[in-house]
Amino acid sequence: MSESASRSDKIAPIAIIMGSRSDWPTIKVGAGLLRQLGVSYEAKVISAHRTPDRLVRFSKGADARGVQVIIAGAGGAAHLPGMVAAMTHLPVLGVPIQSHVLSGLDSLLSIVQMPAGVPVGTLAIGEAGAKNAAIMAASIVGLSDEALMDRVKAYRTALTESVAETVED
Amino acid sequence: MSESASRSDKIAPIAIIMGSRSDWPTIKVGAGLLRQLGVSYEAKVISAHRTPDRLVRFSKGADARGVQVIIAGAGGAAHLPGMVAAMTHLPVLGVPIQSHVLSGLDSLLSIVQMPAGVPVGTLAIGEAGAKNAAIMAASIVGLSDEALMDRVKAYRTALTESVAETVED
Amino acid sequence: MSESASRSDKIAPIAIIMGSRSDWPTIKVGAGLLRQLGVSYEAKVISAHRTPDRLVRFSKGADARGVQVIIAGAGGAAHLPGMVAAMTHLPVLGVPIQSHVLSGLDSLLSIVQMPAGVPVGTLAIGEAGAKNAAIMAASIVGLSDEALMDRVKAYRTALTESVAETVED
Amino acid sequence: MSESASRSDKIAPIAIIMGSRSDWPTIKVGAGLLRQLGVSYEAKVISAHRTPDRLVRFSKGADARGVQVIIAGAGGAAHLPGMVAAMTHLPVLGVPIQSHVLSGLDSLLSIVQMPAGVPVGTLAIGEAGAKNAAIMAASIVGLSDEALMDRVKAYRTALTESVAETVED
Amino acid sequence: MSESASRSDKIAPIAIIMGSRSDWPTIKVGAGLLRQLGVSYEAKVISAHRTPDRLVRFSKGADARGVQVIIAGAGGAAHLPGMVAAMTHLPVLGVPIQSHVLSGLDSLLSIVQMPAGVPVGTLAIGEAGAKNAAIMAASIVGLSDEALMDRVKAYRTALTESVAETVED
Amino acid sequence: MSESASRSDKIAPIAIIMGSRSDWPTIKVGAGLLRQLGVSYEAKVISAHRTPDRLVRFSKGADARGVQVIIAGAGGAAHLPGMVAAMTHLPVLGVPIQSHVLSGLDSLLSIVQMPAGVPVGTLAIGEAGAKNAAIMAASIVGLSDEALMDRVKAYRTALTESVAETVED
Amino acid sequence: MSESASRSDKIAPIAIIMGSRSDWPTIKVGAGLLRQLGVSYEAKVISAHRTPDRLVRFSKGADARGVQVIIAGAGGAAHLPGMVAAMTHLPVLGVPIQSHVLSGLDSLLSIVQMPAGVPVGTLAIGEAGAKNAAIMAASIVGLSDEALMDRVKAYRTALTESVAETVED
Amino acid sequence: MSESASRSDKIAPIAIIMGSRSDWPTIKVGAGLLRQLGVSYEAKVISAHRTPDRLVRFSKGADARGVQVIIAGAGGAAHLPGMVAAMTHLPVLGVPIQSHVLSGLDSLLSIVQMPAGVPVGTLAIGEAGAKNAAIMAASIVGLSDEALMDRVKAYRTALTESVAETVED
Repeated sequence: MSESASRSDKIAPIAIIMGSRSDWPTIKVGAGLLRQLGVSYEAKVISAHRTPDRLVRFSKGADARGVQVIIAGAGGAAHLPGMVAAMTHLPVLGVPIQSHVLSGLDSLLSIVQMPAGVPVGTLAIGEAGAKNAAIMAASIVGLSDEALMDRVKAYRTALTESVAETVED
Repeated sequence: MSESASRSDKIAPIAIIMGSRSDWPTIKVGAGLLRQLGVSYEAKVISAHRTPDRLVRFSKGADARGVQVIIAGAGGAAHLPGMVAAMTHLPVLGVPIQSHVLSGLDSLLSIVQMPAGVPVGTLAIGEAGAKNAAIMAASIVGLSDEALMDRVKAYRTALTESVAETVED
Repeated sequence: MSESASRSDKIAPIAIIMGSRSDWPTIKVGAGLLRQLGVSYEAKVISAHRTPDRLVRFSKGADARGVQVIIAGAGGAAHLPGMVAAMTHLPVLGVPIQSHVLSGLDSLLSIVQMPAGVPVGTLAIGEAGAKNAAIMAASIVGLSDEALMDRVKAYRTALTESVAETVED
Repeated sequence: MSESASRSDKIAPIAIIMGSRSDWPTIKVGAGLLRQLGVSYEAKVISAHRTPDRLVRFSKGADARGVQVIIAGAGGAAHLPGMVAAMTHLPVLGVPIQSHVLSGLDSLLSIVQMPAGVPVGTLAIGEAGAKNAAIMAASIVGLSDEALMDRVKAYRTALTESVAETVED
Repeated sequence: MSESASRSDKIAPIAIIMGSRSDWPTIKVGAGLLRQLGVSYEAKVISAHRTPDRLVRFSKGADARGVQVIIAGAGGAAHLPGMVAAMTHLPVLGVPIQSHVLSGLDSLLSIVQMPAGVPVGTLAIGEAGAKNAAIMAASIVGLSDEALMDRVKAYRTALTESVAETVED
Repeated sequence: MSESASRSDKIAPIAIIMGSRSDWPTIKVGAGLLRQLGVSYEAKVISAHRTPDRLVRFSKGADARGVQVIIAGAGGAAHLPGMVAAMTHLPVLGVPIQSHVLSGLDSLLSIVQMPAGVPVGTLAIGEAGAKNAAIMAASIVGLSDEALMDRVKAYRTALTESVAETVED
Repeated sequence: MSESASRSDKIAPIAIIMGSRSDWPTIKVGAGLLRQLGVSYEAKVISAHRTPDRLVRFSKGADARGVQVIIAGAGGAAHLPGMVAAMTHLPVLGVPIQSHVLSGLDSLLSIVQMPAGVPVGTLAIGEAGAKNAAIMAASIVGLSDEALMDRVKAYRTALTESVAETVED
Repeated sequence: MSESASRSDKIAPIAIIMGSRSDWPTIKVGAGLLRQLGVSYEAKVISAHRTPDRLVRFSKGADARGVQVIIAGAGGAAHLPGMVAAMTHLPVLGVPIQSHVLSGLDSLLSIVQMPAGVPVGTLAIGEAGAKNAAIMAASIVGLSDEALMDRVKAYRTALTESVAETVED
């Protein structure tokens, strides 16, 4: 079953896009977390550089389709999150993919250093960032969805409880 | 008139906190933008390192007070945004303050590289980040406040129109 | 007289675009060099983030208007050169503007680290880059304009001759 | 036998804490050295971000429990050492864990760049730092425990003697 | 069959040079793309440091031999692209090879930070850069070779079409 | 009155050394804090590179003279803290001085990245580090000097109380 | 009086070259030190990029002219030291000039990261490096000029004696 | 046969020292080259931090023993080359060892950023640097040993001839 089919028929409040199919192994840990939190999403490959028309169509149509938060992952000269943010007023969260040569420092700076007027809320490089983008997106949607927010809180509480204090010798 | 008085009596959906009073010249450009967008906020100095008890009280009480989004600015070993995020499920936006010696690279890495489970949506270093945190916070609140979202859209449109195409010789 | 008027009525083979009017003081040293080399150009402010529609119109129409080479300057999360390159097959030269907080390292990485398939020929950070983008654009146009190539060669020869060997005490 | 049980019943003058159980392979080389030096310690996992309440309880109670020096290891946006230091007057030594994506540069800057008023004595990234935190903690405790200081001196002397001058071909 | 023989007897408009035979695994992905685009090239090892005379001969003779664009790959203190650019007025494209110790950051800065007057259009570090240098060289040659430019356009279009939108679960 | 005279006749438990007289403007904020905390100290210029014999004499004699903690500030290829640590078993705290060209990143790495066996507890770059070295040194001495530890606690409490919550508009 | 005239008629064993006249303010502190040490030198501007022919002539002729050590200062993509080293077997010392945008980090990496076979002994960025290149060159020449070596030793001794131990309050 | 025995009974003009036996795999490629060039050397492990007394003895005695050039390799907070240079007037060449966590950037900055007065001629990080230190040391000794200089020239010529121009497909 493809990811794009994994969203239910009801509107998906969260859209996950990524610059390349090779970003999916990183991004999917966030997608899995959204499923665990019971929030539907759509996931698509949109390359700012290789499919600019798809980028424009997606960015301008997201609001009308009912998307509330956009998660965008990209690596290297990572333009996807910022370019989506340029064409929507919806909150955009950016996930820097760990690049091969510069460990994602190029991805991070390309995503976070946006000029005044066009925000991208940037998360950590790599899988931690993908997971945190999912949690943050859920907490944003949860501001007007009490049941979802309760699941976010429960996830956070469980996370705290999962941290054992002792270390093995 | 102090900033903390500038919020109206109705609940302020956005809280702005900063690690030091010296961060205010950077952060206040974001506060000014929130006023321009007609969204009330509270602004406080909370040092993760110098006032940890105040940090705990603020973080745990924000939700109950009606805060929906928290903007946290800090510099150097910038722990404020991440520590607030550790104690609330609300979305937290981090603004790295340009530090004296390392230009804010330390601030940026200290804020953005959060571990899986505790997200901070990080904006650009300095004033651009402060402004963008305000816009993003407004767009998050605007998801359930149509009038506010209209003002965000109008701001974005005006921004586009303000960019003249010609350059002077 | 505005820059955009400075091109003659004949087709300008070189287009200079920049992400912000504040980039012009850097970029204009390149524009001045093009005038010195007797090659016409057009110069425009196009913000990838604030005027994305203008970006699309420019990029897709450049070839038909007779543009042969595009010089694009931008700073911070500098997406302009790469996004133009995404929407044209013309050669694109990128000039990283020296950013306020990170000295242009963010600009450089955002421009140069493009994914396979969408090239941006990147020059040095700041004025040296602006000047070199102009020389390189002229040499590209000069490949099919012998008179221009002769002026490029003469400029290079004069440059060599201008380097005095002696230093003053 | 768990580490927390490895301390003897007498008061442990040194507390070792770490942000994640995954830091233990790095940190334990320091713990091993403390055992070799005959100084008792307690070792615990305390995540600044996932278990903030545990952090507060530990930091505020350490002095009363007889702890004299705290060693805190953490990686990425490493807030643990600084937040402990914010809530105790005891000397705190920080060990930056080598992070996956940025080699521990993020960990180092997050730990060492503390603001005036809240010191963290920071050691090298990784195992060398873990070992050196142990030696330094022992030498601090040794200032009022002559027998321990003699063991520290003997360890240092043995280290010198272990460095053979010749190299094999 | 050696690479230098792979060019046809007609003039090769593109010359590919590299500082070391060990750069070839990176560079050859660009060479392969040129073959795919049907543009002939010559490929040579020229070390700026180990074969400076060969460097001078190549650089000064390229134009007369009919070369239109030079692609130069080098790593570490990568002087080859800049030194070739110093001795020709032809457009020079630089490809930073990923170095063993500093991931190509040294290669990138050594190539891109050229002084005013001597441009090197620099591509991304590693294979992406090698591929993009080939595309850019082809688009430069294509400015006066319509059939080639059509093949470049077709390549770009195919690239866009190759980006599937869906991700597998 | 010279600094070295400012110590009282009783033994100074803290020694402050620095690599160059030009480091004193940074280091003296720490010295001032020690006076404020009522702990005596000696302050000397000892260059690891220009006065290596003085370095050896100081390092080997510190313990016998009654020094308990050594604060060492240095910039650039900052070898002073590590070399002192190599010749004493006393705890050594390092303060990286902000260097002219690389902002103290060279100083920081030269001080903090010590090999296993020879610890230097490193503080922040510049004045914050100088101040924090003083506080940490006082808290180490305070472990066996209750009155001093009480003054350290009072200083920390006053610091907390000095952080006003409100910001001016 | 020009620098090149400042050498006496007897053979100058040290040649100082620099990539640009703008490097002279940095380099001349080294030249001054050579005069103080009583060793003659020649000083010339040779741009690897703007005057490549002059570079070849200088490099190949230095040995025959009696030069024993070459000091080469350059900034940005600093190719001069490495290219001279490529064309002479004489020892070459490199001085990275502090660049405008990247503080000389680009200069340093461009000079020091030479491939196996072609050494450049690199000194610190900026004036300290210029001075140290002079001292090192003098000590190399001094290996076969006892009187000069005695002056180098005297200079070093005087340097040690110039470091006062006390600091002013 | 140990390395220290590999020197012949006649005076070894070159001394190779390294901070740790673990540096030998890097350093020995330089030692092998010296053997190939027919110049005798001594090789020793001297840790600035673990064997400071050995360091002093070595540095002060080198000149009297007939050493002309010192090659010093070290990693991390690499103090060995600079500390040797502090105690001898002989030319010192530094080889930054590639460190585990920061790829040798810490080693490089710790070695190259020496203050004015105490030069260390620094080579590339890792094996290339070890090899180049050997070549440079040989060329320095060769200034007064014509036969050796001829062997250096022959080595350099052979190096040039070893660079084949063609690449395999």
